[in-house]
Amino acid sequence: MSKPISDKPIVKALVELCHLHGVEQVVISPGSRNAPLIISFAGYEKFECLSIVDERSAAYFALGLARETKKPVAIVCTSGTAGLNYAPALAEAYYQQVPLVVITADRPKEWINQADGQAIEQPGIFNNFIRHQCTLPLSGGHKDDEWYMNRILNEAFQKCTGTIPGPIHINVPMREPLYGKTVYSDSPARKIEVLTGDSQLSADAISLLTNELMRYERVMVLTGALHHDPALKQALEALAAKGVVVLTETLSNLNSERFIQNMDRVVSTISEDEQLFFSPDILITLDVPVLSKMVKKILRQRKPHIHWHFTNQTYVTDTYQSLTRMIKGNAPVILQQVADQMPPREKRFHDTWNKRTLQSTERHHQYFEKLAWSDLKMFNLLSRQPLPAMQIHLGNSTPVRYAQLFSWSDSHQWYANRGTSGIDGCVSTAAGAAHAAQLPVLLIVGDLSFLYDSNGLWHKYLPPNFRVMVVNNGGGGIFRFIPGPAETEELEQFFEANHSHDCRGIADTFGLDYTACHNEEEFTAGLENFFAPSNKPALMEVFTPNVESGKLLKKYFKFLRNEL
Amino acid sequence: MSKPISDKPIVKALVELCHLHGVEQVVISPGSRNAPLIISFAGYEKFECLSIVDERSAAYFALGLARETKKPVAIVCTSGTAGLNYAPALAEAYYQQVPLVVITADRPKEWINQADGQAIEQPGIFNNFIRHQCTLPLSGGHKDDEWYMNRILNEAFQKCTGTIPGPIHINVPMREPLYGKTVYSDSPARKIEVLTGDSQLSADAISLLTNELMRYERVMVLTGALHHDPALKQALEALAAKGVVVLTETLSNLNSERFIQNMDRVVSTISEDEQLFFSPDILITLDVPVLSKMVKKILRQRKPHIHWHFTNQTYVTDTYQSLTRMIKGNAPVILQQVADQMPPREKRFHDTWNKRTLQSTERHHQYFEKLAWSDLKMFNLLSRQPLPAMQIHLGNSTPVRYAQLFSWSDSHQWYANRGTSGIDGCVSTAAGAAHAAQLPVLLIVGDLSFLYDSNGLWHKYLPPNFRVMVVNNGGGGIFRFIPGPAETEELEQFFEANHSHDCRGIADTFGLDYTACHNEEEFTAGLENFFAPSNKPALMEVFTPNVESGKLLKKYFKFLRNEL
Repeated sequence: MSKPISDKPIVKALVELCHLHGVEQVVISPGSRNAPLIISFAGYEKFECLSIVDERSAAYFALGLARETKKPVAIVCTSGTAGLNYAPALAEAYYQQVPLVVITADRPKEWINQADGQAIEQPGIFNNFIRHQCTLPLSGGHKDDEWYMNRILNEAFQKCTGTIPGPIHINVPMREPLYGKTVYSDSPARKIEVLTGDSQLSADAISLLTNELMRYERVMVLTGALHHDPALKQALEALAAKGVVVLTETLSNLNSERFIQNMDRVVSTISEDEQLFFSPDILITLDVPVLSKMVKKILRQRKPHIHWHFTNQTYVTDTYQSLTRMIKGNAPVILQQVADQMPPREKRFHDTWNKRTLQSTERHHQYFEKLAWSDLKMFNLLSRQPLPAMQIHLGNSTPVRYAQLFSWSDSHQWYANRGTSGIDGCVSTAAGAAHAAQLPVLLIVGDLSFLYDSNGLWHKYLPPNFRVMVVNNGGGGIFRFIPGPAETEELEQFFEANHSHDCRGIADTFGLDYTACHNEEEFTAGLENFFAPSNKPALMEVFTPNVESGKLLKKYFKFLRNEL
Repeated sequence: MSKPISDKPIVKALVELCHLHGVEQVVISPGSRNAPLIISFAGYEKFECLSIVDERSAAYFALGLARETKKPVAIVCTSGTAGLNYAPALAEAYYQQVPLVVITADRPKEWINQADGQAIEQPGIFNNFIRHQCTLPLSGGHKDDEWYMNRILNEAFQKCTGTIPGPIHINVPMREPLYGKTVYSDSPARKIEVLTGDSQLSADAISLLTNELMRYERVMVLTGALHHDPALKQALEALAAKGVVVLTETLSNLNSERFIQNMDRVVSTISEDEQLFFSPDILITLDVPVLSKMVKKILRQRKPHIHWHFTNQTYVTDTYQSLTRMIKGNAPVILQQVADQMPPREKRFHDTWNKRTLQSTERHHQYFEKLAWSDLKMFNLLSRQPLPAMQIHLGNSTPVRYAQLFSWSDSHQWYANRGTSGIDGCVSTAAGAAHAAQLPVLLIVGDLSFLYDSNGLWHKYLPPNFRVMVVNNGGGGIFRFIPGPAETEELEQFFEANHSHDCRGIADTFGLDYTACHNEEEFTAGLENFFAPSNKPALMEVFTPNVESGKLLKKYFKFLRNEL
C-alpha cells in the first residue's frame, strides 16, 4: 500500500478485509460522510472503483456485476436516506443469492435524532433481506476495539460469500474530521478463513435416492433461472437419457434437445383431463425461482407423491405443497451419481411429453406464418434472426415471459431479476453485467421498467457494445393478459399506467444511439445495424400495439390448444 | 357508496377508515397484488386517485402533497420490492412529521420464502422511520377478525395524524382471486376518535419561563424550516420588540424586519474573538431542522447557559449540547404569553446583531457589483427580479444553501426536504406540492439532484405553471466548498460525480418546455419568458462554471469578513 488512505484505522481494516475476502470492485455514490471510505478504496489500489450517483441504480449495477464476476462487490454510500435506496436491489440479491458488501457511512450514534442533517437510525434498515449486519465501533484506539472489529468483519464476510451467499450490511459510524490521510506501515488486517468440504452424500444416501426414484414411473426435473452449468447439464442429460422428463426455461441456460425447453408452449396445451398423464410421481427441483405460472399451477393441482428439493436454506421452501425431501449438497454431483446408478426405465412418461412437444412446436410455427405486428411477433422475428452471441437480459414482467416461448441459439446467456421479480432495477443490473461480461449485453425491457430505471444508464461504464431494446406498448402490457385487470375499468390508468412517452430523450441524455421502429419491416431492417459494432451503446425502441398485443397472445395459447 | 369495490371486507374497511381519518388523495403505483386496493380506492368515489409508476417518486410526491394540504395522503403499491422504494421518502416524512398512510399489498404469509415471485418479508421493512406499523389479518369471515382489524387500523391512523404526525405502514396480505367486486349495503367502518385539548401551560409555568428569561441579558430565538405561521411570527416579533434576537432562515417563512433573516451572511463575519458578544445566554429553538452549519458551530463552541427546546418528541434532541428545558405545548401561544409578561429589557445584544447585520448587508451588495457569472451570481440575479408570487422548492444541498444568502420578496413560500436532507426526492416532492398548491411552484435544483429524481416528472399531474430551474455546474458543487474534498484528488470522480449531461432530453421526455442559458445576459433575458403563463410546465437549465462557482463562494465569505 503506497498511497495514503484514511487515517481512521477502522476504515483501513475494512478496506483490507474487503480485499482479502475477494472484493475487486467497489461502486461508490458521492457524499461527504463516506469520504474516509472513498479515499481509502480509491487509494488502496487493489480495487476498481466506480462512481454511480443514484444509489438505487448503484446497488442494482453491483448486483449485475457480482452475478457476472461471481465475486462479492462492495457498494458504498453516505449517511441518511442514501442507503435506503439500496433496499430494492438488496432484496433481489438476497433471493438470487448474490454476494454484495453494503457499506453505509453513518454519523456516530450520539448524533442520531439530534435534528442534524442526513442522520437516520441506520442499524436494521435492511433487516429482512440481508445475511448479516453489523455496526462498527468508532475507532477508539483501544486494542480490544481492533480485535472486536476484526472479528465482526470477518464474520460478516463469511456470511456474504458462505454456503448461501447474499448481501451483508456493514454500517460505519465516523466522526469528523473526515478527510485526514495517512500511510500505514503496520501489518495488514487478519483474515479468518473458513475451510469447508464440498458436501457429498454417502453411498447409502445415493442408493436411498435411486431406490426411491425406481419405485415410481414418472419422474420430472423442473429447473428455473440458472447460470450456465455444464456439470448440471450433463447430469440432467444423463437422467433424461434414462427416461426422466426435464423441463427447462430460457433462463435455465440449459440448451439440450433432451429437455423440454419451452415448457409454457407445451404446458398450456394440457387440458384438465390430460393433467394425469403429464404430472410426475416424483418432482425434483433446485433452489432457484421458476418463471412458468402454468407449470406451477398444474403441479399444485396434481401434486407429486414425492418432491425432492435441493437447497442449503434452513427454512422450508415448499413451492408445490408436496415437499418430502430437502437435499443439502452439490446438486449436479448428486444427480449425476443417481443417474449413474439408476437402471434404464420405462419411457412412457418421457414419450408423452415429447409427443406433445412436437405437436405444440408445429402449432407454434404455424401461428407465426401470418401474425400481425405485435409484442409476440417482435420476439418471433428476433428469435429467427442470426444474432451475434450475446448475454441477453430480460426485463420484468412481459419480456421475460415472451422470451420463454421461443427457441434461441445456443450462443446466448440469459438473465433476469427473478429473485423478487421487481421492475425497478432491470436497466442497472444489465449495465453492471455489461461492465464485466465477455459477451456483448442486450437488454430487452418494457417501457415502464425502462423509464423506472433509466438512471441505470447514468454513469461512465456502458460499453460501446451495450444494447437496449425497449418494447414500448404504451404501458404495463402484462395487465392485458391477466384475466382480472383486463376486465376492470381501472385498467388503463392504474394497472397499465398508460402513457405516451418515448425513450429518445433518455437515450440522448445518456449518450446512446437511438433508433425507433414501428412495424415488422422497420424492425427487421433495423436489426443488422443495431447489432453492428459501433463506438457507442445503442437503444432501439420498438413500438408495438397495446391492445392488439394482448389479444394476439391470448389467441396464441388458444391456437396451441387447437381451439382456433 | 354506489360503485362496486373489492369484495374483500378487509379492504372495504381500510378504504372507509382512510376516508374517515381524513385521507383525500391516494397515490397508486401499478401492480396486480394491490388490485383489490386499486379497485376500492378508485371505486369509493371519495378520493382523488393518482397514478405514479416509480414508487420512490410516488412517495416523495405524496410527501409534497401532504405537506401542502396538511392532510394525510395514502400511497398504495404491490408486493415485493415495490414498497422498498418508498423508504427514502418515508424517512424524510418521519423527520418532517408529515402524515403518510403507506399501504403495501402483500402475499399471505404462507407464501413468503416459497420461491414465488414478488414476495419478501414485508412486516418491519420501515422499522426505523415510521410512527406505527401493522399487518392486517386475512379476511377470515369471523366477527373477531373485523373487530380486531378495526381496532388496529384506528390505532394506526391515530398515530399518523396524532401529536407527532408521520408515516404509518399498513401491510395488507391478500389471497387470490384479487379482482372480485361487490356493492356493500352494511354500515361503514367505525372510526375511533381521539379528543385532546390544546396543550396549555399554567400561569405558574409561564411565570417560571418569563423569570428565567429575565435573569439573563442575551436571549436568542433560532428558527429553522417552518410553514408560514402568522401566530408564530407575531409572537417572535413581540419578543424581538423587547430585545430578543431572532435568527431566521429563508425556509422559516418568517419575513420581518425585526428578525436577522440571512444569518449566514452575518454569522460568517463573526471572528473567534467576537463570538462572546454574539452568543446568547438563553437559546430558544423549535422542533424543526436548522440549515445553517455556521450558527450551529458557534452555538456549540460558546454554549448558552440555558436552552429551551419546544418539542413533543419523547426522545431528547440536544442539537447544541446545552439543552436544559424541553417544552411540550403550542410554541406560538407560549412564546406570546412570555412576550406579553416580559418587561422591556436592555437591547445591547439586539443592537450588536443589528449593527453587524447592517455592515454585512452593505458588504454583500458591494460584492455583487461586478461579480462574474457563477452559481452565486445566478441567485443574486434571481433575487433581484420582480418574480411572481410563488412557492419555491429548494433542492439539496447547494441551492438550499445559496438561497439563504439573499433577501427575497415576501410573496414567496419556501420549502426543502430538510428532514434527512437527501438529494433523492427533490423533484417529486415539488411536483406533489404543485398538484395541490394555490401558488405556482418553482423548483430550484442542482444537476445531480435533478437527474437522480427525474422520475418525479413522470406522471400526468404537472400543472402548466410548474417551473424547474436546474443549476447545472456539472456535478455536486457542494463538494467544492467543503474544505476536505476540495483538496482531495478523488474530488472529480467520487465526490462531485463530474458529468457533462444536460437535461433537455429529460424535459422533452416528460413534456416540459426547455430553455438553456449560459451566462448573465441569457439568464436575465430568459426569466420573463420562463415565468410567463403558458400551457406547459417548463424547465430552464442554467449552466454555471463548476470550479469558478466554488471559488467565488469562498471569496464571498472572505469579502464579508473584510478580508478582501
